[in-house]
Amino acid sequence: MAVSKNVSCGLDFCSVPDLKDCLYVANCSKYHFVCIPLVHPNYKREFISPEIKRSEPWTRSDLILCSSDWSTLVVGKLSPHIYVDSKIHSVAKNSEETLLQELALASHLGLVAITIKLKGNIENNMNLARIMFDKLSTTQNFQAQVWIQVPMENPKKQAYSYREDIDLDKTEIESTWQWWNQFRIVCDYDRKLIVALIVSNDLPDEDEITRWLGEPVKCLIIPTTVFITNKNGFPVLSKAHQAMIRKFCALDVQFVITGANRHQNIIHYYHYMDHLWKNWQPNGPIERFARGYEDYLQCPLQPLMDNLESGTYEVFEKDPIKYAEYQAAIESALKDIGSEKEARNEKDSIVVMVVGAGRGPLVRAALNASANAKRQIKVYAVEKNPNAVLTLQALQQEMWGDVVTIVSSDMRDWNAPEKADILVSELLGSFGDNELSPECLDGVQKFLKDDGISIPYSYTSYIAPVQSSKLYNEVKGCRDKDKHSLAHFEMPYVVHFQNKYDIDLPQPLFTFNHPNKDAKIDNSRYGKNIFKAEQDCVLHGFSGYFLAILYKNIKISIEPRTHSPRMFSWFPIFFPIKDPVNLKAGDEIVSHFWRCCSSKNVWYEWSVEKPVPIPIHNPCGRSSTIGL
Amino acid sequence: MAVSKNVSCGLDFCSVPDLKDCLYVANCSKYHFVCIPLVHPNYKREFISPEIKRSEPWTRSDLILCSSDWSTLVVGKLSPHIYVDSKIHSVAKNSEETLLQELALASHLGLVAITIKLKGNIENNMNLARIMFDKLSTTQNFQAQVWIQVPMENPKKQAYSYREDIDLDKTEIESTWQWWNQFRIVCDYDRKLIVALIVSNDLPDEDEITRWLGEPVKCLIIPTTVFITNKNGFPVLSKAHQAMIRKFCALDVQFVITGANRHQNIIHYYHYMDHLWKNWQPNGPIERFARGYEDYLQCPLQPLMDNLESGTYEVFEKDPIKYAEYQAAIESALKDIGSEKEARNEKDSIVVMVVGAGRGPLVRAALNASANAKRQIKVYAVEKNPNAVLTLQALQQEMWGDVVTIVSSDMRDWNAPEKADILVSELLGSFGDNELSPECLDGVQKFLKDDGISIPYSYTSYIAPVQSSKLYNEVKGCRDKDKHSLAHFEMPYVVHFQNKYDIDLPQPLFTFNHPNKDAKIDNSRYGKNIFKAEQDCVLHGFSGYFLAILYKNIKISIEPRTHSPRMFSWFPIFFPIKDPVNLKAGDEIVSHFWRCCSSKNVWYEWSVEKPVPIPIHNPCGRSSTIGL
Repeated sequence: MAVSKNVSCGLDFCSVPDLKDCLYVANCSKYHFVCIPLVHPNYKREFISPEIKRSEPWTRSDLILCSSDWSTLVVGKLSPHIYVDSKIHSVAKNSEETLLQELALASHLGLVAITIKLKGNIENNMNLARIMFDKLSTTQNFQAQVWIQVPMENPKKQAYSYREDIDLDKTEIESTWQWWNQFRIVCDYDRKLIVALIVSNDLPDEDEITRWLGEPVKCLIIPTTVFITNKNGFPVLSKAHQAMIRKFCALDVQFVITGANRHQNIIHYYHYMDHLWKNWQPNGPIERFARGYEDYLQCPLQPLMDNLESGTYEVFEKDPIKYAEYQAAIESALKDIGSEKEARNEKDSIVVMVVGAGRGPLVRAALNASANAKRQIKVYAVEKNPNAVLTLQALQQEMWGDVVTIVSSDMRDWNAPEKADILVSELLGSFGDNELSPECLDGVQKFLKDDGISIPYSYTSYIAPVQSSKLYNEVKGCRDKDKHSLAHFEMPYVVHFQNKYDIDLPQPLFTFNHPNKDAKIDNSRYGKNIFKAEQDCVLHGFSGYFLAILYKNIKISIEPRTHSPRMFSWFPIFFPIKDPVNLKAGDEIVSHFWRCCSSKNVWYEWSVEKPVPIPIHNPCGRSSTIGL
Repeated sequence: MAVSKNVSCGLDFCSVPDLKDCLYVANCSKYHFVCIPLVHPNYKREFISPEIKRSEPWTRSDLILCSSDWSTLVVGKLSPHIYVDSKIHSVAKNSEETLLQELALASHLGLVAITIKLKGNIENNMNLARIMFDKLSTTQNFQAQVWIQVPMENPKKQAYSYREDIDLDKTEIESTWQWWNQFRIVCDYDRKLIVALIVSNDLPDEDEITRWLGEPVKCLIIPTTVFITNKNGFPVLSKAHQAMIRKFCALDVQFVITGANRHQNIIHYYHYMDHLWKNWQPNGPIERFARGYEDYLQCPLQPLMDNLESGTYEVFEKDPIKYAEYQAAIESALKDIGSEKEARNEKDSIVVMVVGAGRGPLVRAALNASANAKRQIKVYAVEKNPNAVLTLQALQQEMWGDVVTIVSSDMRDWNAPEKADILVSELLGSFGDNELSPECLDGVQKFLKDDGISIPYSYTSYIAPVQSSKLYNEVKGCRDKDKHSLAHFEMPYVVHFQNKYDIDLPQPLFTFNHPNKDAKIDNSRYGKNIFKAEQDCVLHGFSGYFLAILYKNIKISIEPRTHSPRMFSWFPIFFPIKDPVNLKAGDEIVSHFWRCCSSKNVWYEWSVEKPVPIPIHNPCGRSSTIGL
């Protein structure tokens, strides 16, 4: 098992006469890196009609540190007087020259990150955005991340709180999230743009904090003034601040401590953050299983078309919950059927067919259930993957004996010798029907007795609107030159969500019941859902989940509100949209999803009608289909 | 000269028992095509749990016409009872089957177009949009255009006008343009989706009509009830209807006459439309010159990097206005300089340098001006294209004599033997500075006397926000696999606009003056403009123009309000944006344009701040630059 990551904590300096001293100070107090001005704050240069000609160098030499230290220990702060959007032409021009000079220096030094503070909305930052995006879009030359410092709370809000003439409830104060949102839109969601959130004394609403979880927040800047002092004189954070910071731990943030030391030693800030970090590393079975897969896009499995590998079986057989629930469901069904048979005085064994038996976990569950329920059963284990059949045959010979019959066949082609009382399958994908469970079970239900039971009995997919610039960017990066230019936006991905904000709660979408007794079975579906945005945010796509009823009240679910505790077999699914949709507080989001079927394939199409219509994604399954 | 195109007029039939009869009727009255139901209106099929089993075929046989007649004479109307968005599942399902059947029939027959009527906004048409887009996006199978019939006026408006309890001014009635706009967004602006506008008795506001000029309107459907009767008993249209139809003539629309014949003979409708069409074909020098180039995207010339061809010179030398204006400007300047020289009692010739002389039109203008002004001149004709120099040398030997000196050199590298009184150049592109006139003239102004004159003296570029789904689609189709995936949206195009709607009037952007006496010449520019949308519409980009002051009050301009009459040398320029922006009536559009300069290149970057920010286009000139 991977060990949990250590905290990464930096120390901010507002001016640095001697860089080696400063690194020594930081290092003695265990800090991992420093944030320093690239140029001494007093050293404002004049490029346009210079009045003062200086002959001395305008900043320190690169020889002070070796290049590996520059690239690991130092985050460069751009000069705070840079104001490229000034209405005064000479100030704007001079700022532009200064900015370009400092950016070139950062490249020269090979810094891993530079940082600049955002002070307002895009209206006053178009030129800053243009220059930064110009730099970022020429990737060869500029490798550093750009940490955009954004205050958690609009400074106006604090300023207004002292004024009696202003009613805060009635005054509209722009959220600083909008500053960031507009800025990164103009920079076309560049991956190297990162948020460094400046923690404020008064925290914004819970909603506003969770909205940041959908953004690429890689750093929290904590002023020393935010810390309070415990009875032993050490710096600690208020409960509210702790709760806020805990939310960000899952995003693997770094911390930067800024401001004058207000306690005995600056090492105490580090110790405290390290202590919080270690306490909060999530470490349940799901987290352990998912480690390294956070926000990583995977293509959904197509077990119907492709055979699974041994390693894949092995991983999923380890799920501590899934097979226990199946066993409970089978046991309950066996008891019910057994009682009926007793009532009718029938003595024969109960026939259980496991369709898609894999390497046998459901056969094992059935045999255990039979023992617990004290009901004789006869098991058919049907499996199409010839490699898994080898495992089944070995198990049958060595352990299970005659009670189990192994059938090496695609379940849809098989001719069963008798009809089943119970049909057990585990064909569900992250989105329920997306591994074609409906089509498979329709194909075999002819072998189920009229009063036979299907386990699962019913399953429903769920969707929810989601904001995640991280995932949007991941999808954007998946472009494949050989495919349709939108193909990467027109397929669902399986993903362990971390860096996301849930715009609204999930809602049910498509439901399938088994056995399906309709005269003409139609597995195409169409669903329209209406969600609501509580605050301004951005729609990047939809998360998808499922809930399956195995038997009676026995369920397995990955839908967040009903998630089966500790079950790790499924990550959610993600349906992206090609252009992010800006949402206003109160906006309705009306989504449309279609499940379409041809004789060869099944695929999804999706679109949004409100607040603005967007194009149908994946028409005719041009970018993604699931093969029958 | 190309002959103007003939009118194309079709006749609509609401039911067609015998197709040959119907074609005979239409043909006798000169109509070019017919619109007919694909299936007889009474023939509603039942796919879901059919109660009536029919054995007879559900529509006529394809053998009735030969395939070339099917593909040229017939527009197929989809059954009006199709309602795939019905809330009643069986109606929706049955409609879907019917629709798919009729679309397949249209493909089978090889029809050039099918048509269906839009009856409301996207809320009630998501499924229709999905099915149509599914068909359209599988291009191999479906070649027909889809004419989406849209009423010019919301039928509600007419209905409400009879009701006293409704105050029309206070009731918000959705515009039918929004029906179309939302529908085609969901269909991702598919090129094969075409608008067929149904002309109403009461016409909407002028604004609403001009907005349609930015849409792919390819057909006007005119009910016979719209026609009035003149004193001879013939059908004619009201002045208002005539004016409206005239606007669409430039878009090469077709007409369809629909409804019962209300006059002596249906041929009269045809005759009238033909008469209007012929009267209205625009036929000035610009239209003649531009014929065939309507809405055709061209890459701007780069005469500084590439040498022009003989044919290109020939075309532009024919401009009836440009050189007359230059001649007038030179004449006026010669008179002024001459008077000053006389006052100072100087006798030497006035030195005129033509920089970028091409094949000599400006030399000719200077010589004519000299004769008219009765002032002796000495001309240097500087040209870098060695092929054009050959022409200049021949003209000098055969016609001009010693008064003209031909210099074969790039103007920026030349060492002039003396200084000039007048510097004449024609280096302007459609956007003024976009062929690098500023940089070229800066390079040669050292040869201009301190009180010398540059012709042109000043030029200004103009931009205006524009709606044109046609151009958006043209740009979208220019994707080049070998370039950046957005490259085609990040370059300006020269284009003779036809199918466009001007959202607001042009505003000045960048101005250059010559000679430039700044201590440090800076040809980079930045401009922010604020426009306003009068009504709901879509921003697809910006049109660009220029106005140049040659000398004193002598101007040449392609800015619409000041366009030099009959001058055809320049088409406007178009700056696209990658994602259309939906605008609401009253919205401010805040645009930002930058002219950026490096030592090798000049390029533009552009973006929009309001109503919503969009990404910077062409950062660092990654997609388009102009080489120095």
